[in-house]
Amino acid sequence: MAKDAKDSYLVGLIGSGIGPSLSPALHQREADRQGLRYLYRLIDIDTLRVPPEAVGDLVRAARDLGFDGLNITHPCKQLVIEHLDALAPQAEALGAVNTVVFEDDGRAVGHNTDVTGFAASFARGLPDVALERVVQLGAGGAGAAVAHAMLTLGAERVTVVDALSDRAADLAAALNRHFGAGRAVGAAPDALPALLGRADGLVHATPTGMAAHPGLPLAAELLHPGLWVAEVVYRPLETELLRTAGQLGCATLDGGGMAVFQAVDAFRLFTGREPDSARMLADIAELAGAVGTPS
Amino acid sequence: MAKDAKDSYLVGLIGSGIGPSLSPALHQREADRQGLRYLYRLIDIDTLRVPPEAVGDLVRAARDLGFDGLNITHPCKQLVIEHLDALAPQAEALGAVNTVVFEDDGRAVGHNTDVTGFAASFARGLPDVALERVVQLGAGGAGAAVAHAMLTLGAERVTVVDALSDRAADLAAALNRHFGAGRAVGAAPDALPALLGRADGLVHATPTGMAAHPGLPLAAELLHPGLWVAEVVYRPLETELLRTAGQLGCATLDGGGMAVFQAVDAFRLFTGREPDSARMLADIAELAGAVGTPS
Repeated sequence: MAKDAKDSYLVGLIGSGIGPSLSPALHQREADRQGLRYLYRLIDIDTLRVPPEAVGDLVRAARDLGFDGLNITHPCKQLVIEHLDALAPQAEALGAVNTVVFEDDGRAVGHNTDVTGFAASFARGLPDVALERVVQLGAGGAGAAVAHAMLTLGAERVTVVDALSDRAADLAAALNRHFGAGRAVGAAPDALPALLGRADGLVHATPTGMAAHPGLPLAAELLHPGLWVAEVVYRPLETELLRTAGQLGCATLDGGGMAVFQAVDAFRLFTGREPDSARMLADIAELAGAVGTPS
Repeated sequence: MAKDAKDSYLVGLIGSGIGPSLSPALHQREADRQGLRYLYRLIDIDTLRVPPEAVGDLVRAARDLGFDGLNITHPCKQLVIEHLDALAPQAEALGAVNTVVFEDDGRAVGHNTDVTGFAASFARGLPDVALERVVQLGAGGAGAAVAHAMLTLGAERVTVVDALSDRAADLAAALNRHFGAGRAVGAAPDALPALLGRADGLVHATPTGMAAHPGLPLAAELLHPGLWVAEVVYRPLETELLRTAGQLGCATLDGGGMAVFQAVDAFRLFTGREPDSARMLADIAELAGAVGTPS
């Protein structure tokens, strides 16, 4: 799927409110170490004052102007699909695209490296944990991606909890269509005490804990030492959830790994070259540390 | 007019049949020496299968996708004007734009560095020659730019010779409107013997002598040692015209200087940084030598 290696690369990110994105720095630092001419541009629909539906025109324009690929983020990950020529399996299963590669023949192919990135981060950071009963907080776009990743990694059952109960049920239904009946269940937050009492681990996929949304996404007393806790938020890297869980002795995984490995996978798709994920993990610790709110 | 210095630059060239352009190499080599992240993309309307009138959409798209500026070439140098927010004086006078700068406020401003580039090359390469009577071959787009440059440099009278006599007359009329009555005259090729007999110099601005159009643009016996000869063609750098003129003892100027100084001026407009023209002249000698047909 990747393009042939060549001498220069032009990529970008389309989305809303993306000014603080670390993707330009992550991609360009690794490209510089590899000696590549590589430019990563932010294409913010708010700055352009265009609606999310303009993503199709922006993708076509980027192809025409010589871009090699694009990352796509909120609120365009679903809207972009109808403008693409083909989808990789994980993007098709999820119904969301975060990476578009312009092939040499001009075709635009959609991928989802949120799924592959979370899976790679989890496999690296929590390699030996039990996966029988996983509780996930959050059924939005990030939640859909990490639930797909968890089931791909072999989780027996993922219970998706969201304050919007329809959203949790819809995601569970979509997961079961893809992975088989009974692999996913939707639930409301009032079920959390019972669910977490018998769970192996907790995946957190809501914005709570970000610098702009500080705090805990659930009552601290629901955490217990038998849980592993995996976080999607990466700014700051140490969220209040991870700090609380760590104090209890839980095995934890911060959101930096997902942020890095989605970039690792996108970089590989854009360039056909293998990035050095260890160097990129060091980059995000520095970059996210520099921009996160001190806690 | 130039943008504030920043850390990365994305530029491109819009035109037809631009695959062999040396501009990416000229710009990127200089940027690399200055330690800038700089990417120069070719946007060929033939490859895109769009008409020249699409230049407006391409310029808007480039601005939206984060380009800092564009070079514009045949057949879009006039067509682009209606899509710009402002014109620099030399572009307005000529009615042609070869460089578009996207200002920080989003305005697209048109410049013509063919004019300033030829003038800079001429002033450097033939600094002390007589400029009373100049004969110019060719009244097309390049011809218009170099005639403007010659009159700006102080040529008293430029006689423009073109096989299309209307085109020569129209260019002369436009030049006189800008520079004052009597500064330019149109003529047909059969007037060349009389014109060159009393001329100080000859400017050549037709495609003859390019690798794809070899040969002399006029009869060799019309040249004489009292003429200086300035060439627009730069691939090869030593055209048959320059070789013949050089054998007669004429002072000569090859087209590489115009190609370099239009890029020097564009680079300065795009980046706000001063390029090193001596290094870029060495680049074009290497690049044009490498691609020109051996003579």
